[in-house]
Amino acid sequence: MATLYLIPVPLGPVSPDTCLPLDTLAVARRLDHFVVERAKTARAHLKAMGHPLPIQSLQIEELNEHTPAAAIPLLLAPLKAGHDVGLLSEAGCPAVADPGSALVMAAHRENIPVVPLIGPSSILLALMASGLGGQRFAFHGYLPAREPERGQKIRELEKAARRDRATQLFIETPYRSAALLDALATALSPDSTISVGADLSLPGQLVQTRSAKGWRGCTDAVRDKLVVFGIGV
Amino acid sequence: MATLYLIPVPLGPVSPDTCLPLDTLAVARRLDHFVVERAKTARAHLKAMGHPLPIQSLQIEELNEHTPAAAIPLLLAPLKAGHDVGLLSEAGCPAVADPGSALVMAAHRENIPVVPLIGPSSILLALMASGLGGQRFAFHGYLPAREPERGQKIRELEKAARRDRATQLFIETPYRSAALLDALATALSPDSTISVGADLSLPGQLVQTRSAKGWRGCTDAVRDKLVVFGIGV
Repeated sequence: MATLYLIPVPLGPVSPDTCLPLDTLAVARRLDHFVVERAKTARAHLKAMGHPLPIQSLQIEELNEHTPAAAIPLLLAPLKAGHDVGLLSEAGCPAVADPGSALVMAAHRENIPVVPLIGPSSILLALMASGLGGQRFAFHGYLPAREPERGQKIRELEKAARRDRATQLFIETPYRSAALLDALATALSPDSTISVGADLSLPGQLVQTRSAKGWRGCTDAVRDKLVVFGIGV
Repeated sequence: MATLYLIPVPLGPVSPDTCLPLDTLAVARRLDHFVVERAKTARAHLKAMGHPLPIQSLQIEELNEHTPAAAIPLLLAPLKAGHDVGLLSEAGCPAVADPGSALVMAAHRENIPVVPLIGPSSILLALMASGLGGQRFAFHGYLPAREPERGQKIRELEKAARRDRATQLFIETPYRSAALLDALATALSPDSTISVGADLSLPGQLVQTRSAKGWRGCTDAVRDKLVVFGIGV
């Protein structure tokens, strides 16, 4: 039966040949039907992955924040017609923090086989590199952008880290990351731990874990970087 | 400066050449100092990864549940002497659900650079394949083995999934996985969603997402498989 393959792509402008396993590359090169977050970047990813067909000849449908829910089952049409389909997000692993999970769920409802492939995830790389441990952990996406909600959420995460003995992970966009690290370094107990993973698997990668007080005055290190933060106690 | 590399290994008996990126394989083959969860399996992994040196000539130290905390800083000695060190767990990504994170934290304390490499994670593959979405998610390790604690925890996770709109992930050993799926199918609201990811990236891989009531009577599918479960509402 036709299969929905979940195909990771690099986390930035590096060669897919060095950061994706052969199995992942082989599936991406074999397919000619794709559902992607944005067609333009997907074409660039597929070209960089060495897809053997003219990229313009591939059937590429978009699934993103603009896609109405009613359109999602239609994206399964090629699968029902017997064609394997590859799902790609803008960066990293699809169907994690992007709208692709709705397609995966629709496939499960129709008993279409789903195969996740191996590749880079900034969340997982940040967790490994943090030293905070992942026996138990939680990922929260973005924190609220404004005070007092942001400070409240930070204190809530510190409480959860202590209560559940669980690493608390979240992300921040480049233009807000230094301000968030400032807020964390100030709002957390001085001995709580803050880990930073930025530009993971890319040139300019930054990986550092310190106490909250150890970060005070050093928060410029993450300025203009996409950061995965971790909190542990 | 010498660097601590976090080196993923395959999730089971498959070739590292097809499931690990070239960058990861290249680092593993270049190093001659390793800290590993169990020396015997690490030697087998390094051999399968095509390490060019006689495996017996590599310096391999163990870090596992028997290692006293006081011994961990000693494992940094090769790094302080200028040798890069590779950290390996039994399967998948190191320093997530294994004692390796203590070494990563010790390295951060000494300002030793830490570089996480790309490879397979059963938690992440299960999350991708679940269709439940990872905008927010939590991983809980193992649930309590006995009732009434297990049932209590299941209901608590369902509540957290609803309250936080977050996918709840946990694992179970092969000999208990069918019993846990039975308990989930019974204890959860009939329309809550249960995803199952077993033997991920291996032959015999099982990926399936259904409602709690859809799983009733079908829980034998996961018998004797190591399963990552997901709950969504």
